[in-house]
Amino acid sequence: MSIRNVVRTIIVETPSKPGNLGKVTTAIGKAGGDIGDITTIKIGPLSTVRDITVHCENDDQLHQVVLAIKELGNGIRILSVSDDVLRAHEGGKIHMTSRMDIRSLADLRRVYTPGVANVCRVIQEEPEKARYYTSIGNTVAIITDGTAILGLGNIGPMAGMPVMEGKAALFDRFAGISGIPILLGTSDPDEVVRTVKNIYQGFGGILLEDIGSPHCFEIEERLKQELPIPVMHDDQHGTAVVTLAAVISACRSAGVSLKDAVVGQIGLGAAGLAICRMFMAYGVEEMCGVDRQPDALNRLADYGGTPVDSIEELMERCDIVIATTGVPGLIKPEMVRSGQVILALSNPKPEIEPEEALKAGAAFAADGRSVNNVLGFPGIFRGVLNAGAKEITHPMLVAAALAIANCTNPGELVPHPLDPKVHEEVALAVEREASQGKE
Amino acid sequence: MSIRNVVRTIIVETPSKPGNLGKVTTAIGKAGGDIGDITTIKIGPLSTVRDITVHCENDDQLHQVVLAIKELGNGIRILSVSDDVLRAHEGGKIHMTSRMDIRSLADLRRVYTPGVANVCRVIQEEPEKARYYTSIGNTVAIITDGTAILGLGNIGPMAGMPVMEGKAALFDRFAGISGIPILLGTSDPDEVVRTVKNIYQGFGGILLEDIGSPHCFEIEERLKQELPIPVMHDDQHGTAVVTLAAVISACRSAGVSLKDAVVGQIGLGAAGLAICRMFMAYGVEEMCGVDRQPDALNRLADYGGTPVDSIEELMERCDIVIATTGVPGLIKPEMVRSGQVILALSNPKPEIEPEEALKAGAAFAADGRSVNNVLGFPGIFRGVLNAGAKEITHPMLVAAALAIANCTNPGELVPHPLDPKVHEEVALAVEREASQGKE
Repeated sequence: MSIRNVVRTIIVETPSKPGNLGKVTTAIGKAGGDIGDITTIKIGPLSTVRDITVHCENDDQLHQVVLAIKELGNGIRILSVSDDVLRAHEGGKIHMTSRMDIRSLADLRRVYTPGVANVCRVIQEEPEKARYYTSIGNTVAIITDGTAILGLGNIGPMAGMPVMEGKAALFDRFAGISGIPILLGTSDPDEVVRTVKNIYQGFGGILLEDIGSPHCFEIEERLKQELPIPVMHDDQHGTAVVTLAAVISACRSAGVSLKDAVVGQIGLGAAGLAICRMFMAYGVEEMCGVDRQPDALNRLADYGGTPVDSIEELMERCDIVIATTGVPGLIKPEMVRSGQVILALSNPKPEIEPEEALKAGAAFAADGRSVNNVLGFPGIFRGVLNAGAKEITHPMLVAAALAIANCTNPGELVPHPLDPKVHEEVALAVEREASQGKE
Repeated sequence: MSIRNVVRTIIVETPSKPGNLGKVTTAIGKAGGDIGDITTIKIGPLSTVRDITVHCENDDQLHQVVLAIKELGNGIRILSVSDDVLRAHEGGKIHMTSRMDIRSLADLRRVYTPGVANVCRVIQEEPEKARYYTSIGNTVAIITDGTAILGLGNIGPMAGMPVMEGKAALFDRFAGISGIPILLGTSDPDEVVRTVKNIYQGFGGILLEDIGSPHCFEIEERLKQELPIPVMHDDQHGTAVVTLAAVISACRSAGVSLKDAVVGQIGLGAAGLAICRMFMAYGVEEMCGVDRQPDALNRLADYGGTPVDSIEELMERCDIVIATTGVPGLIKPEMVRSGQVILALSNPKPEIEPEEALKAGAAFAADGRSVNNVLGFPGIFRGVLNAGAKEITHPMLVAAALAIANCTNPGELVPHPLDPKVHEEVALAVEREASQGKE
C-alpha cells in the first residue's frame, strides 16, 4: 500500500436527490483518491452538504480529485478543501493541565504557598514519596533527537515535535500517562546521556523515540544502565513487541508452532535487531538474520542469533520470515517456501506483497499496515509505572506481546488499537511480570 | 459527640481477595477511628490500593488506628498516612492532556501516523511554523535545581517538585500556558547552561525557579544571552515586579512621588538586587542598597545603584525602604523617619511589624503576606508568548508592574490573585511593550 500522506477534507454540496453522492465518490475513486469518513453536515430541502475526507498520494492527485468533482456539474459544488490534519494541529495537540480547581484562596494556599511547603518537607524526608505526592510516578519523558522521524529521516527534533505530541496524546488517552516531549539539540551519545541524566528526576520513565541507528543502541543501553527508571526505545522494542504479537497471531492462523520454528529476520537495523532479541526472549531457539552491514551481523551474533550470508539462504532455512528493510520487492516469489509465514513489514511498500507470497505457497502473509506501535507503548509504561519497576525487561515485553496476541480476534493479525481492553491487558500483563520479578 | 479534629487519609494496600477490606475497617473501628470516604485507587492483579479517610479524636487515637491496621499482617500494608493538604497532592497536581479526542481510526490517522508526517514536513520547510502547529509556542519550562525551594533552602529538586507543579497549575489556570517542570540534577552553572541549551527547543520560554544565589545570577544571564527564547528567574524578577507594583500602590496611598523619591533596599540577595534593578528601570534616580556581603554591594554598583554602609544610614537617607533579609525585627522603630514608606517583606516575620512602623511615624507600612509572585509570572509569559518575543526586558517587566498597580483597589497593596482581570491586563501590557520593541 502506498503512503497517503495528503489528507484533505472536501466539503461538497449536492442536490438532495439520490445518486449524487455516488457520482461524487465514484469521481474521487477514479481520480485515485481514497475516501475516509463521510459526515453529513446539513440536509436541506434542495441541497445536502457533506465533509468527505480524502487521502491522496500527493498534491497532484489531490488536484485531480478536486477537478473530477468540479467536472460533475449539475449542482454538485465544492464549498471548501481544508487541510484537516494541519487544522487539527493548530496550537499543538497537548496541554499541561492543572488536575485541581483553583477557585478560592484556600485552594491557592493548598496548591501553592504556604501549604505546598508541607508536601516538600514530606518528600525531603522520604524521597520515595515523590511517587505519591507528585506527578513524577505517572510521567514519561518522550525524548527524541529528531534523527529518524517516521520515514522522513533526520529532519530535526522541532519538525519531529508533532510525532512526540502524538505519542503524548496517545499516552493520555490510552493509559492516563502524562507524556512530556523533550527535544534534544544533540545526537552525540555522550552528550545525550549526560543531558538526560541531568533531567531524569522529574520523570517516572523514559520513552526514546525516533532516534537513528546506530547511535540509538549506545544511548539506550547506557541510559538503561545508568538511570534508576524504566527506559525504552520504542522504534526498537515497541515495534518488536507488536511484531512478536502479530507473528504469534499469524502462527495461530497458520497452525505453526512458533517456539519450534526457525525464524529469520531480514534487515538488522534498530527494529530488526530488537525483533530478533524479542523472539529469542520468547523462546525461539534458532533465530537467523541477514543484513548488508557486517556490524549489524556482529550485533546479532553478540545477542546469540545466527547470522546468515544471503536472503536466499535465510528464505530457504526459515519457517517464519520477517522483513524490515525498506526495500520493496526484495523477496522474490521463487524464494518463498511452501508453508512459510511471511511478514514483510516495510512501509509504504512491503518486501513482497501478501497476495504474491500466498500465491507462491506461503501459509500466511501480511504487510506492515496494521503493525502499529500504538498497541504497545501505552500499556507497557502503564504497567511498569503501576509496578514501580526500575527497568523494562524482555520478559515484561514478551508478556506484553502475549497480551496483545490474546486480545486479537481469530483471523486478525493484531487487535483494534482503539479497543481500550488491549491497553488494559498489556498493562496488567506487564505489571504482573514486573511484580513477580520483585518478589 | 466528641470532636474528631484529626482527619487523615490512610492509603492501604491489601491482597486482591474478598474479605480484606472488612478486616481493615473492623480494625479501624475497634481502635476508635471513625471512617469517612473509602476510594479505590488501584486494582491490580495482586493487590488493591484504597484511600480510607479516618477521623480521630487525637493523635494518640490515630496512632492506635494505624497500629491496629499494621497488626493485621497477611499482606495488608499501610502505604501512607496523609493529611488534607497532602491528599490534594496525591498523584500530583498536573497532567499532560490530549487536546483532542481520539475516538476513531480517522482521529488516530490525523493525530498520529500517517497524517502527522505532513505536519512534520511543513515545519521542516518553515521552522517558524512550529509555533502554530505544535504546543511549543504555548509551553514554558519551569526549571529548578532545588537549591532554594521556598524558605526551605537546598532540599533538592525532587522535594521541590510540588512547588514546580504548583507553578504549572497556576500557569494553566491563570494564563492557559502549558508549564513543564524540569528537575535539574546539577547546580553547576556550566552544566546547567549546557543541559538547558540541549533541551530548550521544545519550549517557548523558560521560567527559572528557586535556584539559589549567587549561581542563579550567572545561570540566568548566560541563558538569556545564549538562548533565542524568553528566560526569567521568578525569584528575582517576578518578585521584583510584584514589589514594584506594591510600592507604586503604597506611594499612591501615601501621596509620595516614587520617581522623585530616594529608594533603599535592605538585603541584596537574588530578590533584593532584582528589586533595585526594577526600580531603576522604572525611573528611580537614586537607588540605595545595603548588605553584609561586599560582593552583593559590588553587584549593585555595577548596575548603577548606590551602596551604603549601614542600615541606619539607609533608613536616614531613603524615602522608601524595602527589606528582604529574612531577619525579623532588623528595623528598629527609632530608625523610622516620619513620612517614610516601608515594605518589610520577609516571611513569616517581617523586619518590622507594620503597626510598629506606623506608630514610629511611617506614612505607609506593610509586610510580605500579600506580595505574591502569582500576580506576575502567568501574565508576563502570556504576554511574551503572544508577542513571539525572544526575551523579557526591563521595560516589559515595568509595564507588568504598572498593570498590576492599576488593577489594585484604592487602599490595597496588590489585587486579588484570583481576579482574572489582573492576569489579562499584565499579559496585554507586556505584549504591547514587546510588540513596540519589535517595530
